[in-house]
This record gives sequence, C-alpha cells and structure tokens, in this order.
Amino acid sequence: MTGTSSTRSEPLADGSPTPPFTVDDYRARMRRAARAATDAGLDGLLVAPGPDLVWLTGYRPPETERLTLLVLRDGRDPVLVVPALEAPDAEEAPGGPALSLRDWADGKDPYEAAVPLLGPRGRFGVSDNLWALHLLGLRKRLPETGYVALTEALPMLRAVKDAAELARMAAAGRAADAAYEEIRKVRFGGRRETEIAADLAALLRRFGHSQVDFTIVASGPNGANPHHEAGDRVVERGDMVVLDFGGLKDGYGSDTSRTVHVGEPTAEEREVHDIVRAAQEAGVRAVRPGAACQDVDRAARAVITEAGYGDRFIHRTGHGIGVTTHEPPYMVEGEERPLVPGMCFSVEPGIYLPGRFGVRIEDIVTVTEDGGRRLNNTPREMATVD
Amino acid sequence: MTGTSSTRSEPLADGSPTPPFTVDDYRARMRRAARAATDAGLDGLLVAPGPDLVWLTGYRPPETERLTLLVLRDGRDPVLVVPALEAPDAEEAPGGPALSLRDWADGKDPYEAAVPLLGPRGRFGVSDNLWALHLLGLRKRLPETGYVALTEALPMLRAVKDAAELARMAAAGRAADAAYEEIRKVRFGGRRETEIAADLAALLRRFGHSQVDFTIVASGPNGANPHHEAGDRVVERGDMVVLDFGGLKDGYGSDTSRTVHVGEPTAEEREVHDIVRAAQEAGVRAVRPGAACQDVDRAARAVITEAGYGDRFIHRTGHGIGVTTHEPPYMVEGEERPLVPGMCFSVEPGIYLPGRFGVRIEDIVTVTEDGGRRLNNTPREMATVD
Repeated sequence: MTGTSSTRSEPLADGSPTPPFTVDDYRARMRRAARAATDAGLDGLLVAPGPDLVWLTGYRPPETERLTLLVLRDGRDPVLVVPALEAPDAEEAPGGPALSLRDWADGKDPYEAAVPLLGPRGRFGVSDNLWALHLLGLRKRLPETGYVALTEALPMLRAVKDAAELARMAAAGRAADAAYEEIRKVRFGGRRETEIAADLAALLRRFGHSQVDFTIVASGPNGANPHHEAGDRVVERGDMVVLDFGGLKDGYGSDTSRTVHVGEPTAEEREVHDIVRAAQEAGVRAVRPGAACQDVDRAARAVITEAGYGDRFIHRTGHGIGVTTHEPPYMVEGEERPLVPGMCFSVEPGIYLPGRFGVRIEDIVTVTEDGGRRLNNTPREMATVD
Repeated sequence: MTGTSSTRSEPLADGSPTPPFTVDDYRARMRRAARAATDAGLDGLLVAPGPDLVWLTGYRPPETERLTLLVLRDGRDPVLVVPALEAPDAEEAPGGPALSLRDWADGKDPYEAAVPLLGPRGRFGVSDNLWALHLLGLRKRLPETGYVALTEALPMLRAVKDAAELARMAAAGRAADAAYEEIRKVRFGGRRETEIAADLAALLRRFGHSQVDFTIVASGPNGANPHHEAGDRVVERGDMVVLDFGGLKDGYGSDTSRTVHVGEPTAEEREVHDIVRAAQEAGVRAVRPGAACQDVDRAARAVITEAGYGDRFIHRTGHGIGVTTHEPPYMVEGEERPLVPGMCFSVEPGIYLPGRFGVRIEDIVTVTEDGGRRLNNTPREMATVD
C-alpha cells in the first residue's frame, strides 16, 4: 500500500518547508471542479481513488475492489462513498473535514449508497481510471444515466498548477537533477542495468522522493526500445545508455531523461545525440501560452525529420505531469488545445535505431506568461561515464 | 514500474525450483477463459493490464493511460491490442508467442485497433479494473455492444488453482510464516509502528517475496481500525498489536495476520483473543467442497456473535487470493456459490473495540477434496513480544 507522502510537509530543495495543503485548498479544488463540470454541461463528477482523488481530497485509500467514490455536484456538499471499515482513514485525510461520508458495509450493495447521490438521469464525468466494475454497477442500477471520461470532458482539470503546486514541481525537478549529477559518478561498465537502476532509485529517495515510479536504464540495443526498463544486460564499454527516471516528491512528479556514453562515442552516436538535443531545444522553444500542444510535438519532430530520422521517433513528444507522472496535456499531433501558464509537461524527443542504440533527452517544462521554463537543468550535452 | 517476478523461476521454500509457466500454460488458460465466456453467454473477454492479464499471458505492461487490451474469443486466436512502443515487451512476455499483436501508434485512435476484433453487437466480459476511459471509448464507437464485469460474469475464472499454482501459494505462505517467526524476535516496545512495518517488509523480501503489498502494524487503539496500516505511534508496553502482512512471491500471494502482545495481557485481552481464535478455527473447519462461501463467514461470525461481540466484527470473513491479494471468492453473507477444491482464500475474523484495541487472526486456506488446508501454520495462540 502506498504511503501518505502528499500529506506530509517536506522541505523544498532550498531548505524552506513546503506548507502542506489545507482543507481550504481541497475545498476550493472540489468547488472549482464541480463548477467546471457544470460549465461542461455535466451534472457532476464521480471521482475514483487515484490521482484525481488525491488532488481533490488528499485521500489515498488502499487499492482494492471495494467501492470508494467521491461525488461532486455544483452547489452541493461533496460526498464520499466509502467502505465502512475505511471511513476512519477517510475522515483523517487532509480534505476529510470538507467531506460528508456515506459508508457501506461488507455484504451490502455499494452502489445503493451512491444511487441517491446521482439521480435517475444525470450525466457525469468519471475518473479515467474508475473501474469498469463500478461504472457498470452504477449503470445497471441507473440505466438512464450517462458517463464521460474526465480526459474527454475536462481534460485540463488538473493541468494548470497553482503557485504552491509549481513550487513542489520545481523541487521535484531539482531532486531529479541532483540524482542525475550523482549517477554520472557511478561505474556503468561491467554492471547490470538493474544495478544502476537501483542506484538511481536510491538517489531519488536520498534527494527526497517518497515514491520512485520508474528508473529506466537502457543500454546499447536496449536503448532502441523506448519502454525498456532495466534488465540483466551488463553495460559494456562503447554503449550508449538511456536514463529515464522519476517519481513523486512531496506528492508531485519528476521525470527526466539523459543519454550518456560509456567511454568515447563514435561520430554517428554524437550526430544522433546532437539531433535529439536540437529537437528537444526546438520543442522547449515552442512552448508559450496560446500555442497548441501539437505545436510542441511538431517543432521537435521537424528537427528529427529534417535530419532523416523521422521514422525513428516513434512516440509523442510529451505528457503532462503533476500528482501523477502521466496525465494531460499530451504533446502529440492532433492535440489542438492551447498551452496555458501553469501547465507542466515533458518534452522528450528520441531516436531509436533497432538492434543498435537509442537516444532520448527529456525535461519537464512549465508554461510561463511569455514562454516556457525548464524544471530540469542538468547539461544536455552527452556525458561520458565510466 | 513493477518488475517481472512472475516470469522468473525462484526456488520454493523446500529448495526445489519453481518451474516457470510455459507458453502452453498460458495458451491453455486463454483457451479455457474464452470457452468459459461462451458458456456464460458472452461473445468474448476484454482483458485489461493487471492480474487477469498476468494470469492469462504473464505480461505486465507499465500502468499508463495507453490502451492495452487482450481480446479473447472462443475459436479465434488471442489478440493483444498494444501501444506500438510497448510491442517489443509484449512479444517477449512468457505468453507472447501465443498472441497476435495489433499495435497502435501515439496520436492514433487506439479504439479503432480494437473495434474490428469486437464486432458491432457483441456482449463481452471485461476485467473489473478496465479503465472507464477505455470502456467508454469502446462503447462510443460500438454503441450496440454490451459489457459485464468479470466479477459478475465469470467470478471464479481464476479462483481454482492448479497444482503448479498451489505449489506457489504454499511457498508464499511458508515465506510469510517465516517472516512472522522472525518478527516476534524484534523489539516492539518503544519503536514506531512504521519501523516494525519496515522490518516486516524486509523479512518478506528476505524470504523470497518480490513484492510487498501491505505490512499493517496496528498497535493499541490503532488496532481497532481494521484498515490502519502503520503510523508514527510508538508501541508501548501493554499494547495489543495486530500484524497483517503479505505480498507476492514468485507471482502468487501471501496474506496472514497474528495479534501479539507487548508484555503480559489482561484477562479481557486474553478473552477477546481466545474468541477470535475460536472463530477463526470455526471458519477454517467450515471449509469443504460444496459448502457455500457464506457458510465460512457464518461459522466464524457465529462464534463472535455468541460471545457478545457480533457488532464488533465489522468486515467479511475472507477474500480469495492468487496472482493478487484480493479477488473472488469472497467469504461474505450472500455469497452462495460453492467452494471447489483448489480455491484459496483468507479466513480472518476480528474484533475491534474502538479507542482500545483490536484482534485479528488470519490464515490462507485452500479447499481440498475433503475439507480445507491452511497454508499458514504459525501458532495462533497470542504471542508476547518485547
């Protein structure tokens, strides 16, 4: 089970404490979300355990099949449907005092507890990750209700971060940067990817992460698979190694990538790395309020395509980040919504040469009033490691 | 991201290696599941990442918003819809050679890849934990299709374990027992619950667990909250302490509870513990093929009710366990389905006295040809610890 990191106060990287979110913060978020639902033509929001619930209430229930559901309706008090045996924990959550609890006991029908809150013909936005079990359970009892996923109905609900959130995002970024500076000092050659990944995880924790979500160490040909994690392969002299790592610090996410080389790179390796670095720079430069998300993708992709590697950049350029490490907005062709100050997302182009090697460079960027600001600031030149 | 423990061969507690599941094992499971769907009047199964997919294919994709969906239809080859950049990992999964892959690239509509596999008017069983985002995405494109959650349609799909699975369940139980024997030797008094919980987690890993899912240490009044995990409370002399811990070893789950006492218990504490022990014994004795799941709950509950604590046993008596630590069958009033040899589940009655203390005793039990067999075998008498 996960901890309660988001509810604790941890020092920021500059030594000042992060003030914990208050019940008023959560109340304001819930009110804003309910209002946004109304503005989107919905009768309310049904929020499942996971990032939406953490953001709205600070509550992280255990992940089980038991129904926990926050019902938000404009002009009404928020109600949390909760298993009876978890009610004490829900009450103690940071946003607990702002919630009315409606509990249900084992052996009872959990949906009956939710039904009176919904009404017979409402149309609701639901957390993307609400279980099908529960959606189907509600729909069976209320066949005339309608549902739409939050990514579709209110994709930008959590996308724009306020000052307190941005401070946490920046602190998470600095912690990831500190981990990268340290990992360059460890030995790569002759060690398994999994050993280096364990070093990275330990460094993220040392610099204040309460949760490590991924520590990709993709050496040599493994680097050509963008979702390779870390395996038994022993890193060799001459390898390119993609490092991509992140997690949560004080409840907010980090995610950065650098590609390093064990010993001296070849001219081709340098060239491919330079192209990706230029693409990443172009992507970051495209960030400004009012630009479309897809413009960031296009700017980065154009550099790689012009260099002749267009078919080797096989994923989108970026994803939003906040209380999770993957959320809207997505920097991808077809995403025409505009960038807004306070949004935070990755810019991470890559080139993948099957059977040989890969390069990816990634920073988290936040949209400012007049452009974009990186939250990761370690050198993007290719580092050589031992 | 989670590791790939289920695909590795780890030694059993008796030193013999666990033979890894083969592609034929996975192929047989998929065929059986597709056939069960037909028998249940369904046109197929849609399987989401998580325990169903692990059990059917051995594949554990990263948990993201990108659609990964296994489509099983009787008489057709299994097809995995998969993000293009994750296709190489899917191919390398233990069940990968039994799958046809249908990949989709970032920026494309993932549901279009699934639509041709479903047909316009099919009725499908879906993994409980399929995201609402994806269920609604499919339904939008195929408005005449119907869906039912697997817990409702095929609740017992994974419930009956075969011999190779039972060997893993038994090994996980022995490892949890070994952890309990060791934890009794550590000091409790004067240490925080979280410190003892960390000891428990380390012990589970030492005895072969690749994943620790929960290490509840609920001391004194915290024991009265059945879902308390572990907090900052310092354990004191005179405390009852509920220990409830488990995770995955070689891909299969452990889950056991014992309640210990720091120093000498009072007469009342002894009495409550004795009642729970008798209730747990009664629950285990009720296990036999053909008995209803609710009979196990009734047998345990009757002991507690007769002793006058009926309103202090505030949860069901047990839950199934396998590739997850919470799954059907549930030992709860109203669950009339019969026990079948090979099922594995917890028997875990408890008494919770708000503000004072709690007691819970839990073993995993498997149904045999003529009764039930515990997979946890440490003493159930109340142990005293320092």
